[in-house]
Amino acid sequence: ENTLLTGYKDGFYIRSDEQDGMELRVGGTLQGDYRHYGETARDNRFDIRRARLMFRGQLTPWFRVGLTYEFQGNETKHLIDAYGEAAISEFHSLRFGQFKEPFSLEWQTRNKGLYFAERSMGYSLGPKRDIGLMLHGSFYHDTVNYAAGLFNGDGIDGSSGGESDEPELAARLVVSPFKASSAEWLKFLQIGASATYAQIDLSNVDLEVKSSGMTGTGMNLYVLGHNTKFGVIQNADNRIRTSLEAAWAWESFALTGEYFRLKYTDLKPSGKPARDAEFSSWYVSAMCCLTGEDFVLSRGVMKPLHPESVFNPAEGAFGAVVLAARAEYFTGDEDWINPVAFVSVKEADAYSVALNWILHPMHRMIFDYTYTDFSDPVRVRVNPDGNVDYVEKESVLTLRFSTDF
Amino acid sequence: ENTLLTGYKDGFYIRSDEQDGMELRVGGTLQGDYRHYGETARDNRFDIRRARLMFRGQLTPWFRVGLTYEFQGNETKHLIDAYGEAAISEFHSLRFGQFKEPFSLEWQTRNKGLYFAERSMGYSLGPKRDIGLMLHGSFYHDTVNYAAGLFNGDGIDGSSGGESDEPELAARLVVSPFKASSAEWLKFLQIGASATYAQIDLSNVDLEVKSSGMTGTGMNLYVLGHNTKFGVIQNADNRIRTSLEAAWAWESFALTGEYFRLKYTDLKPSGKPARDAEFSSWYVSAMCCLTGEDFVLSRGVMKPLHPESVFNPAEGAFGAVVLAARAEYFTGDEDWINPVAFVSVKEADAYSVALNWILHPMHRMIFDYTYTDFSDPVRVRVNPDGNVDYVEKESVLTLRFSTDF
Amino acid sequence: ENTLLTGYKDGFYIRSDEQDGMELRVGGTLQGDYRHYGETARDNRFDIRRARLMFRGQLTPWFRVGLTYEFQGNETKHLIDAYGEAAISEFHSLRFGQFKEPFSLEWQTRNKGLYFAERSMGYSLGPKRDIGLMLHGSFYHDTVNYAAGLFNGDGIDGSSGGESDEPELAARLVVSPFKASSAEWLKFLQIGASATYAQIDLSNVDLEVKSSGMTGTGMNLYVLGHNTKFGVIQNADNRIRTSLEAAWAWESFALTGEYFRLKYTDLKPSGKPARDAEFSSWYVSAMCCLTGEDFVLSRGVMKPLHPESVFNPAEGAFGAVVLAARAEYFTGDEDWINPVAFVSVKEADAYSVALNWILHPMHRMIFDYTYTDFSDPVRVRVNPDGNVDYVEKESVLTLRFSTDF
Repeated sequence: ENTLLTGYKDGFYIRSDEQDGMELRVGGTLQGDYRHYGETARDNRFDIRRARLMFRGQLTPWFRVGLTYEFQGNETKHLIDAYGEAAISEFHSLRFGQFKEPFSLEWQTRNKGLYFAERSMGYSLGPKRDIGLMLHGSFYHDTVNYAAGLFNGDGIDGSSGGESDEPELAARLVVSPFKASSAEWLKFLQIGASATYAQIDLSNVDLEVKSSGMTGTGMNLYVLGHNTKFGVIQNADNRIRTSLEAAWAWESFALTGEYFRLKYTDLKPSGKPARDAEFSSWYVSAMCCLTGEDFVLSRGVMKPLHPESVFNPAEGAFGAVVLAARAEYFTGDEDWINPVAFVSVKEADAYSVALNWILHPMHRMIFDYTYTDFSDPVRVRVNPDGNVDYVEKESVLTLRFSTDF
Repeated sequence: ENTLLTGYKDGFYIRSDEQDGMELRVGGTLQGDYRHYGETARDNRFDIRRARLMFRGQLTPWFRVGLTYEFQGNETKHLIDAYGEAAISEFHSLRFGQFKEPFSLEWQTRNKGLYFAERSMGYSLGPKRDIGLMLHGSFYHDTVNYAAGLFNGDGIDGSSGGESDEPELAARLVVSPFKASSAEWLKFLQIGASATYAQIDLSNVDLEVKSSGMTGTGMNLYVLGHNTKFGVIQNADNRIRTSLEAAWAWESFALTGEYFRLKYTDLKPSGKPARDAEFSSWYVSAMCCLTGEDFVLSRGVMKPLHPESVFNPAEGAFGAVVLAARAEYFTGDEDWINPVAFVSVKEADAYSVALNWILHPMHRMIFDYTYTDFSDPVRVRVNPDGNVDYVEKESVLTLRFSTDF
Repeated sequence: ENTLLTGYKDGFYIRSDEQDGMELRVGGTLQGDYRHYGETARDNRFDIRRARLMFRGQLTPWFRVGLTYEFQGNETKHLIDAYGEAAISEFHSLRFGQFKEPFSLEWQTRNKGLYFAERSMGYSLGPKRDIGLMLHGSFYHDTVNYAAGLFNGDGIDGSSGGESDEPELAARLVVSPFKASSAEWLKFLQIGASATYAQIDLSNVDLEVKSSGMTGTGMNLYVLGHNTKFGVIQNADNRIRTSLEAAWAWESFALTGEYFRLKYTDLKPSGKPARDAEFSSWYVSAMCCLTGEDFVLSRGVMKPLHPESVFNPAEGAFGAVVLAARAEYFTGDEDWINPVAFVSVKEADAYSVALNWILHPMHRMIFDYTYTDFSDPVRVRVNPDGNVDYVEKESVLTLRFSTDF
């Protein structure tokens, strides 16, 4: 029996006073949105974007456990993260259970370290969370960060029972060559690459690409499923994803950019020859902290920015402000678009500006305006009178209050 | 980093010892029922009525966050409350996220402050929880309490995508004119009014009215949906709710009463003229604390009664006992009743008596007997042999053990 | 208001320093599996087997509350345990809400006290958790343990509304005649019996028997539902379960065995005479702790084994190791098997060997190999090319890391 201490540091904790001793953290995330569209056919509304609970336990110096639950929305899958992690050494760990597949800077960076309401369109091309096993760590004082794992390849709590039970391979490698350098402006420069490879079955052909304003709605920029314009797919071979990334931060300024590519090989519709389906996307974003706080890249990801003074008007303190801009582009495979379905586009380009007001390490407001231009019309809905609403662009203003406790 | 204290006061907490400092509360509610019906066609059974988890965080003096989850039943929507609240001043706050729409004394009063197994039939006519934004507070030392907000109008985690995306307006105003008076018997006298107004779409025409014994079952007193006796509804205009309330408490005695009204305007069935649908209900209830504890009305709602001594037979202490009686009445729109469906009644009146044994601030037993008389037969089920069971009344005894920790 | 202490003992707690004082425990269970089959038709994969949260509250000396949630899988029913328990005396309690029906040693023993990846096939024949009321306790210093209760008989959060609303009776009695004896080798010898009896309706005819490797998949060893080879069942009479158990532990060695029987009486298919359906199963298992720790039986169940030293290679400590072996047998009612459906077998026998490495009271790895032989082929799936995969045996290796915090 141990007597433990209670406190708060980036979250409420109960822990022993030894180094690396026992610790339990209980926390959560709540994000409340208001979304307004420029197009009248779209549905302006309030939304709960995330409502998560988090439990983190450090039970022994060499073992951690993490559980995260998401209760937003009308979903049956509430388990987000559920992993155990054994420390092999100070810098290398083996993680197993359900967690984020290693891929892409944007995906690996926590919500709190991103400065737009939503991730870029390329996010849809990457893997999400999955069940598996991963080795990850860093070499040479954070100069090289790696993660590589084996996963089911079926996504969160995937219970698809296709023919292929080969695991998906996923890996990410990030190099920060000047991490130890004395040149401050080079210190946070990193480049990286990721890839996943899996033999798949039909249940894995389920792509849905979304623009910023389509998040949480039934609308998509591109849909590829079982049932295509060539007929029902009967066989699939591989799914290959690749991404290249670069990031640089210097004092109150940061730049990030990524290129994503997703390829399904040999999708075989009934009675027709097999063919591939290819998708790509890129984004470039720039962040500037108007109140002078510094951006930090650590362990291959962008750290959440910590305001120097927290909101307290009585003392003339108002927190930190980050201004961010992003350009992005998506190309969907033309071949697989059914022109009468109006659910997929060949190309889309999007531009975002976002103002982040970080009142407190735990509280943030985001004002994000994103304009997306589609190459083809997308159906919004069929009205009761039989008329169909289409949109060819989307301009969406998202107001978000986010709190992490 | 702060070191915090751990304790219990109306729930377990971790908090700093400063005034208005950081605080996390973790708690829950568990209600186990046994329900017995006088009618043999109905299904006597044990039930878990509520099984909630609650997290409340005070992160900064000016910001609170609340998360409540309900895990009872075979539902996918577990998120009950998910709100952030910014204190504008000591007496006024801005709340956003998902929470109870401001409407009606009975709805605003917590479970622990109500002395019957279920809320009255009028509860079905009011709004429930929704996603939105609300300003609320009080003036003149609790003499005037107000709350007004904008909501999606689609209920919990509503993701309906109708044509109308106008927000619902909801407001409640309660006046306690003698709050500051020295006349004890006038102090807790309050009157109030509430209203909601929304332009709606078809997905919002989904009324289900339930009697006490129908809670948690598939049975209803009145159903109004898409598909009516006039055919499928193709258009809807407004939904307007109003309620009037009065409450009075003096020492161990309390009276409450409310009148509810719900109106859908211009429901347009296919090929037929549009018409309105109107519903109303009222209840009057009286509570008497046999063990002498006082009832308290504060911030416009009934506070849970605190027993003077907790159950401890060794010291001859048995907690508090509250006896309560209620009469209520419901009128449903005659026009929209399909006489061959047997799912709706024109009128219902109900009478309840309930004994509340409050063993401890956290433990309560309720013995509630409610008799409801229907103006028309309601179908219970079709038996395998083809016979149909109907009921024209309901007499239900609910035994509940309730614990809040 | 009370100030409480924080600590860890078999879980994190907040509690007062009085004897039997207020206490809140927050904990969880995470089990990550990798499952590999000897049969190529089966699907090797990673899995989250359990991802539970647990809250236990002791609010007053005479009342406890327990809530357990399971978030693994694509399920809507997350509430596992939700009960209140009133202490009648030191040794007898009344429990109500949702919890495990009293039946069988294997079912009553917690996961941590079992040494195979999955419970035996007989587990499928027993009751699971249900909503009801139970008296349980022990006499003569743990010599006699009993539990008896009334339940809905419809399982977790059952909301089936059949004709029969008679409660299910369930009881278990365990006798350890030599508990107080000075003969160490007789002390932990116990024998017991359990039974359940219920008048049922059609919704209760829903048997699915699974082998070790079928857990969490859609496959079964035997399926009995509404729709049988004799046609749709129109009436059902009783469901009767019985089990006999014996267990013995002496120092580092333990033996357990059980016999299960399940009988549905007078299942009446449409236009055919009523007939019974009968099922039985047994298992025998032996456990040996290679590192010398002792097994303990207490309150009628097997206690989790506590390692003498926790994993710490620097000090040459590696935890405890338990080797376990099990033989089991299942017989399904021949009459109700539809020979062209390939979803049920007449008989199955299974053999398991399992190595348990208990690194820490909270961490355990299990390596379980189970071979099951079926008397008849069972369909695995229909391939896209029209071929059907069948199996007549199952050899499955389960690797599990389990953590309880």
